[in-house]
Amino acid sequence: MSIEETIREMAQAAKRAAKVVSVLGTDKKNEALERVAQRLLDEAAAIKAENEKDLAYAREKGLSDAMIDRLTVSDAVIESMAKGLRDVIALPDPVGNVTGMCLRPNGLQVGRVRVPLGVIAMIYEARPNATIDAAGLCLKAGNAVILRGGSEALHSNTVLARLIQEALRETGIPDGAAQVVPVRDRAAVNALLAQEGCVDLVIPRGGEGLIRFVVEHSKIPVLKHFKGVCHVYVDANADLGMAEQIAYNAKVQRPGVCNAMETLLIHEAEAKAFLPKMAKRFMEAAVELRGCPKTCGIVPEAKQATEEDWPAEYLDLILAVKVVSSMDEAIEHIAKYGSAHTEAIVTSDYGRARQFLRKVDASVVLVNASTRFNDGGELGLGAEIGISTSKLHAYGPMGLEELTTTKFVVFGDGQVRT
Amino acid sequence: MSIEETIREMAQAAKRAAKVVSVLGTDKKNEALERVAQRLLDEAAAIKAENEKDLAYAREKGLSDAMIDRLTVSDAVIESMAKGLRDVIALPDPVGNVTGMCLRPNGLQVGRVRVPLGVIAMIYEARPNATIDAAGLCLKAGNAVILRGGSEALHSNTVLARLIQEALRETGIPDGAAQVVPVRDRAAVNALLAQEGCVDLVIPRGGEGLIRFVVEHSKIPVLKHFKGVCHVYVDANADLGMAEQIAYNAKVQRPGVCNAMETLLIHEAEAKAFLPKMAKRFMEAAVELRGCPKTCGIVPEAKQATEEDWPAEYLDLILAVKVVSSMDEAIEHIAKYGSAHTEAIVTSDYGRARQFLRKVDASVVLVNASTRFNDGGELGLGAEIGISTSKLHAYGPMGLEELTTTKFVVFGDGQVRT
Repeated sequence: MSIEETIREMAQAAKRAAKVVSVLGTDKKNEALERVAQRLLDEAAAIKAENEKDLAYAREKGLSDAMIDRLTVSDAVIESMAKGLRDVIALPDPVGNVTGMCLRPNGLQVGRVRVPLGVIAMIYEARPNATIDAAGLCLKAGNAVILRGGSEALHSNTVLARLIQEALRETGIPDGAAQVVPVRDRAAVNALLAQEGCVDLVIPRGGEGLIRFVVEHSKIPVLKHFKGVCHVYVDANADLGMAEQIAYNAKVQRPGVCNAMETLLIHEAEAKAFLPKMAKRFMEAAVELRGCPKTCGIVPEAKQATEEDWPAEYLDLILAVKVVSSMDEAIEHIAKYGSAHTEAIVTSDYGRARQFLRKVDASVVLVNASTRFNDGGELGLGAEIGISTSKLHAYGPMGLEELTTTKFVVFGDGQVRT
Repeated sequence: MSIEETIREMAQAAKRAAKVVSVLGTDKKNEALERVAQRLLDEAAAIKAENEKDLAYAREKGLSDAMIDRLTVSDAVIESMAKGLRDVIALPDPVGNVTGMCLRPNGLQVGRVRVPLGVIAMIYEARPNATIDAAGLCLKAGNAVILRGGSEALHSNTVLARLIQEALRETGIPDGAAQVVPVRDRAAVNALLAQEGCVDLVIPRGGEGLIRFVVEHSKIPVLKHFKGVCHVYVDANADLGMAEQIAYNAKVQRPGVCNAMETLLIHEAEAKAFLPKMAKRFMEAAVELRGCPKTCGIVPEAKQATEEDWPAEYLDLILAVKVVSSMDEAIEHIAKYGSAHTEAIVTSDYGRARQFLRKVDASVVLVNASTRFNDGGELGLGAEIGISTSKLHAYGPMGLEELTTTKFVVFGDGQVRT
């Protein structure tokens, strides 16, 4: 069977299974997830053995330590996958919730009911734990899912798929509800992106290159963010102690993730009071500073920033710094160079806080808090399957609810249209 | 300037204008719409003169009477466009509404606020009134809009665009907020569909061919429905008088629209009691019946349906009729041949009503009411810009709210992530 045929059959099986999963009760879905969690713990040895094959292949290919780290499935990773599933089990099921109901003048009762999206394709990099996370969230929201992880994780993902499918069958759910693409070839991704008759949504997660490839080739709607070029703007009269804590946390706490700060904007009225102390703290944390001319005048250790620095997503201990003459200049800078991901202001001014919230177009806009809070768990969604900077359907972190849609239901007594 | 350059400049102007419109107060937006309404009435003669040029061109090209009818802008059409705008003025503004607010354990207050989508491109056929309807809804929801109507309506749309832009400027709003594509060439559509850096959403309205063209060529998210193959299922023990009223209304009241019934499904227990009388009524209304063998056995006047009839969207006084042995068979038929648009059951059984609502996957599912109610006005949205059978973002009629999205706003007191 060709890759295209394999993928088409998987997509069709997923569509058939989606019909069943879409009307399952919450208990049944939770039962299946608990069986997966239990199997993960019971079969830890088998999982690690398969993962070892991937690791050997990865070492042979000379993958970076960071990539090998993400690929490794240790006992701790297995336990955290099982715990993740149990966290999802504990979340309320969005399916069937009525999000609005009204009575029309002609007596029709019109409501909207939350329903699953159908079939979701996840395309991601070589992190086996993403296979379990994504399967758990998609199934809980009543969807079927086709998982395509990075090719380096194929053995790990295949054993995880077997455990998921055994758990599904044992619960009486068709195993088409969660499938792993069984081939390394990238043609499988192209084939998957062409299944617009069966697949309702594609969610790519990973580097900008992977995501652009998916967007470019997909005939199916895609929810994604390309990158996170996040700013913290320190306003005139801000509490500078608070600003320092927030800026430090936003840059240093986990620099390699999309909600880390990449550029610090500081009002000129505070630049001299704020930057020297802030710069010292950043340099102690080995953060390289790249400043505008005014910044370099205040912080001689900073390198001169170039035009390439302002739109850069470093994902590293590097920070661009710019002195601005007003909040409006900060907002314009963000509109020009930001990525609609996460933007924060530190201010003590009520009116400017409101204006910043209103004028800045980003999936999450914060006042007096770290950009690192753009995360489904932190914002109260319980868990997240990704962050969207597209505005359609979801803008910001996507939880269970964002894996559903609503349909209209109408209760009549014989009404006709006149 | 080439067509591509023209379109790129329009898209960039729209993006700049969208920033302004997105933060306008409701009063200002309503003021602009009222100025458009007033101008339409004041300049009726100029509009009709331009429309006359389109009509002359259409007659020369030999367009059908139905198309010429849709293209014609009479005084009554102008009045109804003005009234439509005033209806939109009367609708509540969705922008700025908070759709949820919670307090996190760390004291962060997290909310979601409704914000405009940005720039919307409308691509539609030669109905000049659609230009005003779409501009009104998009602007009220805080978006900029680029309008591309059918090429036969170019003169009419150009004069309407002038009136809209004059009204915008008079209100102090950049006229990039509502623009009409000034060229007939279809290359303009391709160019528009490639402006993914500026345009956030494309809404095509018209025949299946136009919509498939847009979906095939767009790099921008598209909200659309291809067609409406809508069913009415008459259940065992249904009130047959009610069933007759609903089926008749669904087929005959306006057969040329997407929410008209195309196939009638009838439970075998009621077929003999129901079909003869129903068929007589349909035939009196000149409806051609195409039946399954059982139907033809009961109604000798019905033609034999072929496999092509079940997925057909006739948009005409033609009806496919099929006798089924159970509700499950009806649901399977709908899943196989339906278009996820509008599906209705006529039943007196509480449990089956609930099951039908749950199991049938369509944007609107009705119990004991005509399929013709799938309409934004009828379902309480106030007005609609189209119907979506895509599940992403909107499923069913789209009103003002569906022309917006939500962003997260976070109110902190210096919180950082640990």
